Amino acid sequence: MSQGARITPRAQDFNAWYNEAIMRAELADYSPVRGCMVIRPNGYAIWELMQRALDDMFKATGHKNAYFPLFIPQSFLEKEAEHVAGFAPETAVVTIGGGKVLEEPLVVRPTSETIIYAMFAKWIQSYRDLPLLINQWCNVVRWEMRTKLFLRTTEFLWQEGHTAHGDEADAERETRRMLGVYRRFAEDWMAMPVITGIKTAAEKFAGALRTYAIEGLMQDNRGLQAGTSHNLGQNFAKAFGVQYQTAEGGLDYVWNTSWGVSTRLVGGLVMTHGDDVGIVCPPKLAPVQVVIVPIYKTDTERAAVMEVGMKSAEALRAALIRVELDAREGMKPGAKYYEHEGRGVPLRLEVGPRDVGQGQVTAAQRTGGKVPLPLRGLVGEVQQQLEVIQRALFEAARTRQEQHTRRGVTKDELIEMMQGEGGGGFAYGGFCGSAVCEQQIKEATKATVRVLPDEEFRSPVTPARCVWCGGPSVTEAVWAKAY
Amino acid sequence: MSQGARITPRAQDFNAWYNEAIMRAELADYSPVRGCMVIRPNGYAIWELMQRALDDMFKATGHKNAYFPLFIPQSFLEKEAEHVAGFAPETAVVTIGGGKVLEEPLVVRPTSETIIYAMFAKWIQSYRDLPLLINQWCNVVRWEMRTKLFLRTTEFLWQEGHTAHGDEADAERETRRMLGVYRRFAEDWMAMPVITGIKTAAEKFAGALRTYAIEGLMQDNRGLQAGTSHNLGQNFAKAFGVQYQTAEGGLDYVWNTSWGVSTRLVGGLVMTHGDDVGIVCPPKLAPVQVVIVPIYKTDTERAAVMEVGMKSAEALRAALIRVELDAREGMKPGAKYYEHEGRGVPLRLEVGPRDVGQGQVTAAQRTGGKVPLPLRGLVGEVQQQLEVIQRALFEAARTRQEQHTRRGVTKDELIEMMQGEGGGGFAYGGFCGSAVCEQQIKEATKATVRVLPDEEFRSPVTPARCVWCGGPSVTEAVWAKAY
Repeated sequence: MSQGARITPRAQDFNAWYNEAIMRAELADYSPVRGCMVIRPNGYAIWELMQRALDDMFKATGHKNAYFPLFIPQSFLEKEAEHVAGFAPETAVVTIGGGKVLEEPLVVRPTSETIIYAMFAKWIQSYRDLPLLINQWCNVVRWEMRTKLFLRTTEFLWQEGHTAHGDEADAERETRRMLGVYRRFAEDWMAMPVITGIKTAAEKFAGALRTYAIEGLMQDNRGLQAGTSHNLGQNFAKAFGVQYQTAEGGLDYVWNTSWGVSTRLVGGLVMTHGDDVGIVCPPKLAPVQVVIVPIYKTDTERAAVMEVGMKSAEALRAALIRVELDAREGMKPGAKYYEHEGRGVPLRLEVGPRDVGQGQVTAAQRTGGKVPLPLRGLVGEVQQQLEVIQRALFEAARTRQEQHTRRGVTKDELIEMMQGEGGGGFAYGGFCGSAVCEQQIKEATKATVRVLPDEEFRSPVTPARCVWCGGPSVTEAVWAKAY
Repeated sequence: MSQGARITPRAQDFNAWYNEAIMRAELADYSPVRGCMVIRPNGYAIWELMQRALDDMFKATGHKNAYFPLFIPQSFLEKEAEHVAGFAPETAVVTIGGGKVLEEPLVVRPTSETIIYAMFAKWIQSYRDLPLLINQWCNVVRWEMRTKLFLRTTEFLWQEGHTAHGDEADAERETRRMLGVYRRFAEDWMAMPVITGIKTAAEKFAGALRTYAIEGLMQDNRGLQAGTSHNLGQNFAKAFGVQYQTAEGGLDYVWNTSWGVSTRLVGGLVMTHGDDVGIVCPPKLAPVQVVIVPIYKTDTERAAVMEVGMKSAEALRAALIRVELDAREGMKPGAKYYEHEGRGVPLRLEVGPRDVGQGQVTAAQRTGGKVPLPLRGLVGEVQQQLEVIQRALFEAARTRQEQHTRRGVTKDELIEMMQGEGGGGFAYGGFCGSAVCEQQIKEATKATVRVLPDEEFRSPVTPARCVWCGGPSVTEAVWAKAY
């Protein structure tokens, strides 16, 4: 994209905007391999920051990282009936190795329950080995027909937590704890408000007892499943013989949980905060939090502003702020602004001769607004600005979500709400719990049940009637058209 | 392995010792997938520390991380003739995706030159885009017939740096710079002395102009290629059309380099420092640097030693020392010692009632020797102990390497040196440079040319005659039997 070119406005074509915003920021690129993308340095740097924050949270809750094979023997996948039914149609299969046709084909992991629990069966003997709390950062492959940068690609990067517990209650606590970790990460780091809840049978993970999810609402009013946490029950333990000796001397199957988030989160970040100029990085996940741009005409001016620029960069870096001094020659400040705005750098500090004279820099927030900041105490001021931006992004996203949330919808309102490309939002309504209504709603409106919301998100009064059939409602549900 | 069981001594069967030391430390496990291993939390924690240190060094030298597809279209691999000849026989090939036979099979990357330089061709237009300095952390697959934990597995984890430069000199500087980074990492972090040099044509990377390597010498006197850095010339640039407009307005092909180290380094760490008790972690790469073991009989004693233990752990942790307080109940101190020794924890602090009375702890180095350390100033004392251990491990390894290095060897000496299972070491001798001699030596002694050593490692006087044919020597070479 040439400098100064505009990207398609969101209102005109959200999908085009999304792709162009990613290309302008150089987050990713299309690859010559069907369905696979390349994550470019600017995008990977966001993912690395996400990884670091999540990894710290996983370790703080007692999990350890490990690594399991990429390949899964086809027979392993077939040991859990629901699991293979869900995943087999979208697998990539290795049939040749070392020049020879393999006796048993190897599936490239779409998820690792089967291979990991086969190992758990070796490692777990007694109740003293429980809980076993493992996480893995890796790539997985699911053959996708319609792909979209970050959101849906044949190969993607993710983490998958896998744990084993002595009883249902402990497994359920873990499932819930990690859902809470995901929610905290989404809100505190990504500045992306989410709702939490349980999935219906139709939407749960293939092989799980119960699936919980965090769900965000993007700017085009589509929902995004941003992270899932599964209580797998004893399904995999029975399939792979993961048994342990109880404290009482008996023999029992363990209870497993698994939970994951992926590079899809980068897409969620883009769609939550981006504007018609391009992406906007929340400061906590911005590879470059502050860019300093010197402004000058003469060599004398250059010397003065560069000195202030360098000293400021040094001071900010010492305070662990990710700062870049853009000292490129032969490039106008405006062109630099344009580039850094497109990359979503949350705060820009302009240093011109007048600023230097007044002992200040001019701070421009990526989301709009300029203020002078005194050089004295600059670090504290910048830290505060970054915090303000982080909070403002979250508040703006939350307000938007609230504006596009409607409670106690009727059938007609649900249909109307989901109509057309721009239609959508979170629709709360009564639900009879039947798969028939769920399927009919999906066909009629393209909306699916995102979650049966947790108490915190439920309406004060649960609707008495199913939004679709009018029968008695057994629960409240949240519908949205989803990615 | 049950507590107290001994592992096979190194002198008796080095290979058995290696596997048992890894199992005792729970670094890895065999998987049910042919040729693939599982990296368990203790092993993965070492790899994470290695990654962190290397990644910092890569970033400090201007490289950025990115991520490229796992799958490579077969036709891409075939674009560079030498490359495909070298790698095609050991690939895993996906022929089925989403339930359908693929039109073009996809190779699971054995290395990513082809897919990465295909992207470089899109990204590089002008000399202003150069140098382009990219690194990728990922998994790769090479179909291996004889596998060995960490050292040779069908799938392994690694990093691969890929760069593009405007001319040969800049590419060569980069190739050399990264070899230097690898050497520094091996010596300063792994405490593993290495020699550096260039590979012969027979041993170089398939598709490279020149390959450089760092080579260590393990305790069984076998060499270990621990990292390689390749000047790829314009081979891949020509195959994938990676051209750029020069400052003068002409059009030229870029020069590429690539360089990598892998989880094989964990195996190198084990084989460099392990003893007959198990593995020994150099402090800088030890997931647990210090373990504190409380010793008590009565509840009163327990309260006193636990207080000292907890306070000491807190103080050490605050100084960013990776410390673990082993407060497990119902387990004798000796059993704890045994476990932590097997895991290679470099320093153990024993806290008994007598220690508490004397205001001290007893420090036991994993490599032998106990000293009392006063509680006042404990952090500084522990830091010093860790530094001493780190240095001592390096010195011991260097002394051993020197003892098993022989310079100016004759043909008979070379043959004798490499004889039998225990035979080996670095043999320096004259080399005529012919592939015939190289091949004959390999067949007769199982030793290969590890490197033509860099000046720093060369003998004061270059031998005048080839160790094998007696013809004029064109260079000095280092032979070893290698992993």
